[in-house]
Amino acid sequence: MMEIVKQLEIEPGMSVNSLLEGMKNCGFGARRLAQAVNIYENMLSGDYEKFFTLSGAMVPAGMRNIISTLIRQGNIDVLVTTGANLVHDIIESFGSHCLGSPESDDAGLRESGLSRIYDVFLKDEDFIKFEELMQSIIPDRKDVLSGVEFFRLLGSKIEDNRSILRMAYNHHVPVFCPALPDSMIGLQAWLHSQTKNLHIDVFADVKKIVDICYDSSRAGIFIVGGGVPKNFALQSMLVTPKSFDLAIQLTTDTPEAGGLSGATLSEAISWGKISANANYVTVYGDATINFPLIVAATISRLNRFQ
Amino acid sequence: MMEIVKQLEIEPGMSVNSLLEGMKNCGFGARRLAQAVNIYENMLSGDYEKFFTLSGAMVPAGMRNIISTLIRQGNIDVLVTTGANLVHDIIESFGSHCLGSPESDDAGLRESGLSRIYDVFLKDEDFIKFEELMQSIIPDRKDVLSGVEFFRLLGSKIEDNRSILRMAYNHHVPVFCPALPDSMIGLQAWLHSQTKNLHIDVFADVKKIVDICYDSSRAGIFIVGGGVPKNFALQSMLVTPKSFDLAIQLTTDTPEAGGLSGATLSEAISWGKISANANYVTVYGDATINFPLIVAATISRLNRFQ
Amino acid sequence: MMEIVKQLEIEPGMSVNSLLEGMKNCGFGARRLAQAVNIYENMLSGDYEKFFTLSGAMVPAGMRNIISTLIRQGNIDVLVTTGANLVHDIIESFGSHCLGSPESDDAGLRESGLSRIYDVFLKDEDFIKFEELMQSIIPDRKDVLSGVEFFRLLGSKIEDNRSILRMAYNHHVPVFCPALPDSMIGLQAWLHSQTKNLHIDVFADVKKIVDICYDSSRAGIFIVGGGVPKNFALQSMLVTPKSFDLAIQLTTDTPEAGGLSGATLSEAISWGKISANANYVTVYGDATINFPLIVAATISRLNRFQ
Amino acid sequence: MMEIVKQLEIEPGMSVNSLLEGMKNCGFGARRLAQAVNIYENMLSGDYEKFFTLSGAMVPAGMRNIISTLIRQGNIDVLVTTGANLVHDIIESFGSHCLGSPESDDAGLRESGLSRIYDVFLKDEDFIKFEELMQSIIPDRKDVLSGVEFFRLLGSKIEDNRSILRMAYNHHVPVFCPALPDSMIGLQAWLHSQTKNLHIDVFADVKKIVDICYDSSRAGIFIVGGGVPKNFALQSMLVTPKSFDLAIQLTTDTPEAGGLSGATLSEAISWGKISANANYVTVYGDATINFPLIVAATISRLNRFQ
Repeated sequence: MMEIVKQLEIEPGMSVNSLLEGMKNCGFGARRLAQAVNIYENMLSGDYEKFFTLSGAMVPAGMRNIISTLIRQGNIDVLVTTGANLVHDIIESFGSHCLGSPESDDAGLRESGLSRIYDVFLKDEDFIKFEELMQSIIPDRKDVLSGVEFFRLLGSKIEDNRSILRMAYNHHVPVFCPALPDSMIGLQAWLHSQTKNLHIDVFADVKKIVDICYDSSRAGIFIVGGGVPKNFALQSMLVTPKSFDLAIQLTTDTPEAGGLSGATLSEAISWGKISANANYVTVYGDATINFPLIVAATISRLNRFQ
Repeated sequence: MMEIVKQLEIEPGMSVNSLLEGMKNCGFGARRLAQAVNIYENMLSGDYEKFFTLSGAMVPAGMRNIISTLIRQGNIDVLVTTGANLVHDIIESFGSHCLGSPESDDAGLRESGLSRIYDVFLKDEDFIKFEELMQSIIPDRKDVLSGVEFFRLLGSKIEDNRSILRMAYNHHVPVFCPALPDSMIGLQAWLHSQTKNLHIDVFADVKKIVDICYDSSRAGIFIVGGGVPKNFALQSMLVTPKSFDLAIQLTTDTPEAGGLSGATLSEAISWGKISANANYVTVYGDATINFPLIVAATISRLNRFQ
Repeated sequence: MMEIVKQLEIEPGMSVNSLLEGMKNCGFGARRLAQAVNIYENMLSGDYEKFFTLSGAMVPAGMRNIISTLIRQGNIDVLVTTGANLVHDIIESFGSHCLGSPESDDAGLRESGLSRIYDVFLKDEDFIKFEELMQSIIPDRKDVLSGVEFFRLLGSKIEDNRSILRMAYNHHVPVFCPALPDSMIGLQAWLHSQTKNLHIDVFADVKKIVDICYDSSRAGIFIVGGGVPKNFALQSMLVTPKSFDLAIQLTTDTPEAGGLSGATLSEAISWGKISANANYVTVYGDATINFPLIVAATISRLNRFQ
Repeated sequence: MMEIVKQLEIEPGMSVNSLLEGMKNCGFGARRLAQAVNIYENMLSGDYEKFFTLSGAMVPAGMRNIISTLIRQGNIDVLVTTGANLVHDIIESFGSHCLGSPESDDAGLRESGLSRIYDVFLKDEDFIKFEELMQSIIPDRKDVLSGVEFFRLLGSKIEDNRSILRMAYNHHVPVFCPALPDSMIGLQAWLHSQTKNLHIDVFADVKKIVDICYDSSRAGIFIVGGGVPKNFALQSMLVTPKSFDLAIQLTTDTPEAGGLSGATLSEAISWGKISANANYVTVYGDATINFPLIVAATISRLNRFQ
C-alpha cells in the first residue's frame, strides 16, 4: 500500500511544527523539508556525534543566533565552516550588517565605503574595527597551534554570548575552518605573523577531526550550503571505517553540473562517507528559509531550546 | 540610516507568522519571503482585484486545499491556471495521489499502471474514473461557451467542497485556462465533441479577463510558478491603461536564461504590466514550501481563514 | 569494461562538430551535449516523425533562422510552440529586436517605449506595426478554422523566407500553438473577431496532432524549453499506443521542484509518453548556447543544411 | 542607436569561433558567452597578469588538458584551485577516470570499489596507487614550505606533460590551494607528517599572492566555478590598491541565495576587488560546455595554442 498525498491544511496562528507535520504527506520540496525535520529530530534526540557544516553568507543574512543557540543547547558537537562566517560572527559582536538593495550601484557603494553581499551591506569602518580587534586578540605564541586551538583562543576573547565562536569556546565545540587562509581572519593572521609569533599547523586539524570520526559510535551531519566544509567533514569520515548514519543537506545547487555542493547524498554512499542504510535527505532551496524552518520545528518537538 | 540585520531568533512552538516577522530583518531569501507576506497582507486587506495564477503540479503536491480555501474566503477574485492542476483537482474529488520515490524505475511503474510526477504517483484506474466522470459531466450544448463558462459547468458538477473548481463555482470566481487543449480535460473535451455538441470559444475568455482588468480600480497578483498563467494575466493587464499595483511571484527559475517564468517583475514594468511604483517581490524556490508559509503567515495577521 | 574519460583536446580553428565529438568522452554537461548530438543525428537521418517543441523567448534571442532552416531542410515535421515565439517571428519579418542591458531602469524603458525581455528590447512602434499587419492578414471567414489552419493562413502572408511561419507554410509543416489566447496573436485574433468573422476550434488541433502520433511508425522529439509545447506533444502521444523512440530536452529547470519543464524524460516513460527503450537525454542549461551547438554539430555530420 | 539582434546562422562544418562570433548579436546566454570570448581575447593578447581559478570536478570531467595547455602556452600566470582537482590531476598521470551512469546504485558501486562523481567513477585501486605515489613523492624536509613550494615539489615529480601540476612546475606558474587540508593530498600530507618531516605554512601563500597582486600593472581573472578559489583570488586583490580590470566567471549558481559562488562580478566592485570600469561577464551554465567553447574560440583568434 502506497501512502497517499494528504492535502495540506493551513490555519491562522499555526505553528511552524504543525505546518511541517502537514508537509509530511505532500510532494516535492515540502516533503523533503518534512523529512529533514524527522531526521534532525532523530539526530538531536539520539546518541549521535553531531556534525554541522556551514557555508554561504549565513551570518550576514541573520542566521547567527540560531547556530550559536544550537551550540549552547548541545546540538552541535563539531562545527566546520568558512572563514567568512567566522569573520562576520566577530563583526556582529561589536557592529552590524545593514540591509540594502541587491540592485544598488556597486561603484557608488564603493565610494560610500560599503561592501555588498547580495542585499546585505558592510561598512568599511566595521572592517577597520575588525582588523584592530584581530590584531589585539590574535595571540603572540611560539608554540604551534592547530586551527581548532587558534579559533578557541579567538572565541575566548569575543565578549558576546550570541557569538558562534564564543559559544563554541564555552561549550568545548571544536571549530574547523579548512580554508583558513581564504578569509579576512587568514589575512589578519598573516599580517600578525609578520611582526609576531604565530604558527598554525593546518594538518593538526585533519588528525583532530579524523579522530572524532573514529571515536563516534554513531554520527549525523547537517550540511548547510556545501562547499569546503561539506567536503572536509565527509572526507574525514571517509578515511575511517565508519560512515554517517543520518544526513541532511540544504543546497541551492543541483547534481547535474557535477560539483560537490550539489552532489546527492546518495553519491556520498559510493565513497563510503555515508552509510548504505543511512537516513538522509537533501532540501533544495535558500537556506535562510529552510534552515530556520527545520530548526524551529525540530526544537518544538524536543522542547529543549531554552 | 540603513536598517540593520537583526539576527533571527527561534523558539520552540513558535508560529509561522512569528518566524516570518523575524525574517523581515534578515537577508536573501528570508527577507524576500517576509516581504511577500507584507505585500499579501496589503493585497488581502485592501481594496484590490486579486488575481491568482497557478502553474506547476501544485495540486498533486498537496496545495489544493490552500487554494480552495483562499477562494472560499474571498481571497481570490480571478484564477488563471493550467489544465493539469484542474485535472488533478477533479481526481482528488474522488481519488488520491500517492507518494513514492523520485528514483523509481519508470518502466516498472508503467507496467504497474502508475504515472509519476517527481515523487507523486497516479493510478491508471483513477485516470479511467476521471475520463468516465468527464464524459458524464461535459455538457452537450449547441450554444457557444467561453472557457470560463465551461469550467463553471464542470465546477457545478464536482461534489467536493475542497475542490478548487467547485469553490470557484460556489463563489463566482472565474477560472481561466488559456492552454485548455493542453490537458486531459482538453483531450476529453475533444473526445466528447466527436459525438456530442460542444463549442468553446477561447477568445471569449480574452475579452472576459481584459474586461476585469479594465474594471479594476486597483489590482494585485499572486503568481505561483510562471508559465502560461503568468503571461496570460500580465498580458491582459497590458492591453488596458491599468497595471498591477501589488505583485508576488514564486518561481524556481532565474532571469538569466531569458524565459518568462524566471523574468523579474521589474521587467514587467517595462511592458506596462506592472506599475512603476508597484510594490512587488519574487521569492525564489520551491512553491510547495514558500506558498504555504506565505498563506499561513498572512491569514494569521488577517485572522480570516475560518 | 567501463569506458574511460578522455581528456578533451582543443585546437585553434576547430569545428563545433570536432569539439562535440571530443565531449563524448567527458563527464557532466559536456557528455550530455554530445549524446544529444548523437540522438539528433539518428533522428534526422532515420525514418522518424520529427516533433519539435519550442518555448522560451528563442526568437527574440536570435534562434529564428536556425528553426526556419531546420524546417526548410525537412528536419521538423511537427512544430509546437508558444504564441510569443510566433509573434516575434512575425515582428522579425518587418522589424528588429534590439540589444540592451538586463540591468536597465524598467520605468525609464517604459517611458522610452521599450519593452524588455532580459537583455533584448522591443520598440512600441514595432508592436504597432505588428498589430496593423495582424489586422490586415487575419482572415475574415465564416467557416471554422483549426489553429493549424489559422497559422497556415498567417504564414502564407509573411513575405520573408527566414520566417518560421512562412517556412512552415511553404513546407507543409503544421504549427501547433496550444495556448493561442495567451499571446499578442491571440489578442489580435480576439480584437479582429469583434468586427469580422473568425472562428477557431482549438480542439481540432488536438485531433490533428493525435492523428499524426497514431500515424507515426517511429517518432522523435526535440524539446527546447519545456512549458505547454512540451506537455502538449507528449500528452498527444500518450493517448495513442505509440511512444517516442528518441528524445532530446534542453531545459534550465531541474526535476526537484516537480514542474513539468524540469521533469526528466525518464518520468515520461512512466506515463507511456516515451518508450521504455527509447534513447533520450536532457541537456541542462541555456538553450541559446546548447541549441545552436547541437544543430551545428548534427548538420555537419549529415551535411544537409544547404 | 541600439544594436539589433542578428539572427544566428548555422552552417555545416562551422568553427567554434564562427559560431561564437555569431552569438555576439544574440541575446541571453549566447551573448554572454560571446562577450566572454572577447574579454578573454583581450586578456590573453594584452599585458595582463592572468589569474585562473578552478573549482568543481573539472579534471574528472575531462578539462585537464585544456588547463595544462593554457599553462604551457603562457595563458595562466597564477592558478588557484581546489585540492580535488589536483588529486585527480595526479591520478590521471598514471590512471583513469571512468564513465558511468549518474543513476547507478551507489551502495552497489561501493561494493564494487567505485567512487562516483555524478557520471564519472574512480576505482579504489587508483586511489591506492595515488596514496603510494604521494607517500613516495611528498618530501621529507625540515625547512618550512609554503603551499606553492609544496605543489612545485609535487609537480616536479609528476612525469606527465599533460599534468596541470607538471606544466605549472615547468612554466613557473604558482599553484595556490587555499583549502589544502580539504583534499586527499591534505590527508596524505598529514599521514606523511606522522613519520617524516613536513612543515607547510599556509600563510606564506597569502603573502605570495598578495605580492603578485601588488606587482600587477593590470590584472585579469578567469573564474571557473566559484568556491574558495574565487574568493581567495579576489580577496588577495582586495588588500591591495589594485583591482581586476578584466573578469570572466563561469558558474551554475545564481545571485539570489547570496552565496559567493553565484555572486555577480558587479558585487565585487563594491568591495574594490574588481575595478569600477572593468570589463566583465558571467556566463551561467555548465563549465564543461562553456569553458571549452570560450577557450576554443579565443585561441582561434590568437592562433597561439601550438
